[in-house]
Amino acid sequence: MNILITGSAGFIAPHVAQAFTSRGHSVVRTDIRASDGIVRSELTSLESMLDITRGVDIVCHLGGVGDVYLAINEPYTAASANVLGTAILLEACLRNKVRKVVYASTWEVYGEPHYQPIDEVHPCNPDHPYNITKLAGERLVMAYDKLKGLPGVALRLGTAYGTGMRPNSVFSLFINKALAGQPITIKGTGQQSRQFTHAKDIARGFLLAAESDVHGDVFNLVAGEDISIQQLAEKVAQALPTQIVYEPARAGDVPPARVNATKVHKVLGWQPQVQFDEGLSEIIAAHIPQVAVAG
Amino acid sequence: MNILITGSAGFIAPHVAQAFTSRGHSVVRTDIRASDGIVRSELTSLESMLDITRGVDIVCHLGGVGDVYLAINEPYTAASANVLGTAILLEACLRNKVRKVVYASTWEVYGEPHYQPIDEVHPCNPDHPYNITKLAGERLVMAYDKLKGLPGVALRLGTAYGTGMRPNSVFSLFINKALAGQPITIKGTGQQSRQFTHAKDIARGFLLAAESDVHGDVFNLVAGEDISIQQLAEKVAQALPTQIVYEPARAGDVPPARVNATKVHKVLGWQPQVQFDEGLSEIIAAHIPQVAVAG
Repeated sequence: MNILITGSAGFIAPHVAQAFTSRGHSVVRTDIRASDGIVRSELTSLESMLDITRGVDIVCHLGGVGDVYLAINEPYTAASANVLGTAILLEACLRNKVRKVVYASTWEVYGEPHYQPIDEVHPCNPDHPYNITKLAGERLVMAYDKLKGLPGVALRLGTAYGTGMRPNSVFSLFINKALAGQPITIKGTGQQSRQFTHAKDIARGFLLAAESDVHGDVFNLVAGEDISIQQLAEKVAQALPTQIVYEPARAGDVPPARVNATKVHKVLGWQPQVQFDEGLSEIIAAHIPQVAVAG
Repeated sequence: MNILITGSAGFIAPHVAQAFTSRGHSVVRTDIRASDGIVRSELTSLESMLDITRGVDIVCHLGGVGDVYLAINEPYTAASANVLGTAILLEACLRNKVRKVVYASTWEVYGEPHYQPIDEVHPCNPDHPYNITKLAGERLVMAYDKLKGLPGVALRLGTAYGTGMRPNSVFSLFINKALAGQPITIKGTGQQSRQFTHAKDIARGFLLAAESDVHGDVFNLVAGEDISIQQLAEKVAQALPTQIVYEPARAGDVPPARVNATKVHKVLGWQPQVQFDEGLSEIIAAHIPQVAVAG
C-alpha cells in the first residue's frame, strides 16, 4: 500500500516509516520542514494536503505540535496545527478517497484520572493546550469516520521515547548533562512517572492499525512499565556517573496516571516489545560522541 | 465597563449588547461581516484581535461557526473559527490585559448522555464538528484562565431562539412555510426535544457572568421547558394554520437530552424569564410581513 506519514521530521516518524517499508509498503514522508527524503507540505493548506494525499492508501498522521511547552507558550500554534491542520488533512483524505487515517493521539487526552488504570471509556478532560488540541483532532478523525465514511483509528500513545528524540526531551537533557559532567536537574519531586513507550513499539501499532479492518475506534498504545523521572535520572546517572539535583516543577506538567492497553492487545494484537532499560541504553549510546576513526 | 462582543452579526449578539448597554456599559460590536454599527475584525488574525481588544474590559465571545450544518459540511471552517479563532482571541486578550472572557459554549458539548438531567460534571463526548470545535474552544478558555491568568467563564447555552434568528433555523423554516400556506416539514420523528432558551435570557447570563467575580468555571445556561419539534410545529400551525408532514432525519442531528441549570442559578443567580409561548409569539409576529402605510 501507499503510505503517507505526516510529521516526518519528528522522531517517531522514522520508526513508523521503517515498520511499513520492512513490510513492503511504499512510504512517502512529509513535514512542514523539508529535508533529505522528506517532501514539504503544509497541514493548514487544503491545496497542499490535496496534493500530498493523492494516490495514498493510508495516512499515518503524526504531524502537528507535539511539544507540550510550545503548545503552552503558543496555544494558537497548537490549535492551528493540531485541530485546523487535522481537519484540513481529513478533508483532503476524504476527497482523495484515502482508505484509512491512523491518528497519533496521546494518553494525555484523559486529563485528571477518575480511576486507574485508565481505559478508553474513561472521560477525557484535557486541561492544557497540548491535550485539548490533540483530543479535538482525534475527535475530528472519529467524526469523519462516523459522519463522512473516511475510516479512522486513533492511537493514544504513551510518552514516546527512542533514538532521535528532541534535544529538549527529558532523556536528552539528562544524558547531555551527565555527558558534560554536570548534575541532572529534576523539575518537581521526580516521583511523577510515565509509561515510556518505545517508538519502535509505537510504529508497530501504526502498522497493525493500518493493516487491520478496524476503524472508528480509539486505542491506548502504552507500554506497561512505570518509570519515574527519578528512576530515569538514576538510570542515566548509573550509566554516566553524575549528581542529581531538584528544582521547582514547571506549569503544565502532566501528573502521572496508569494507563491500560488491554483493548489494543485484544483487538489489534499489539504488545510492547522493547524493555525500558534496553531502549534507554540505545539512546545513551546514540548520545555519546562518535570518535572519528582515521583511515 | 468596555465590552466587546464578537460574532455580532449573529442573532444572539444584539440581545447581549442590549443587556449591557441597558446597564450603562459601553459596547463595541464586532464580526467578520462588517455592517452598520459592527466593526469588522478577524478571529484568525492576531493583529486584528490585538487591535479590537485594546482597552476592552470584558469580551463576550459569541463569534465562530454556530451553524451545525455548516460545521458538518466544512469541519475545517469550524476548526478555524471555533478553535484557532478562540485561541487567537484569547492570546490577544491576555496581551491586552482584558479582565474577563465570557465564552458562548453549548449544551451540545456533552454528546450522548450518560445520565439526565446533565449537570456540568457530566463527561463531554462531542461527536460532530460543531460540538467538537466548540468544546475545544471552551477548554482553551479554561486553560488560559488556569495556566495564564486570563479570567474566563464558559456558558453552555441551550438551543437559542428569539427574534433575528437565521433563515435556516427550525423556527424560521416552520413559520415561513406556514405563512406561505405550505406544510411544515419535520425531519425525523419530531419527538426530539430542546430546552429552547431565549436570547434575552442568554444575554442576562452573559451580563451576570461579566459582572461577577466568578471565573475558571463552566455553567449550563438552559431554560427549563422541554419543547419537542412536533410541539413547536403544532404551536406554529395553531398560530398560522397549515399541515405538518414528516421526512427522514438529517445526519448530525443531536439527540435530545435534559440539561440541568441549577449551578448557574446558585452561583450567578440566573433563571430563565421568557416563557416559550411568549418567545414564540414574538418571533411569529416578527415574521409576518409589515404592510407599508401610505403617507
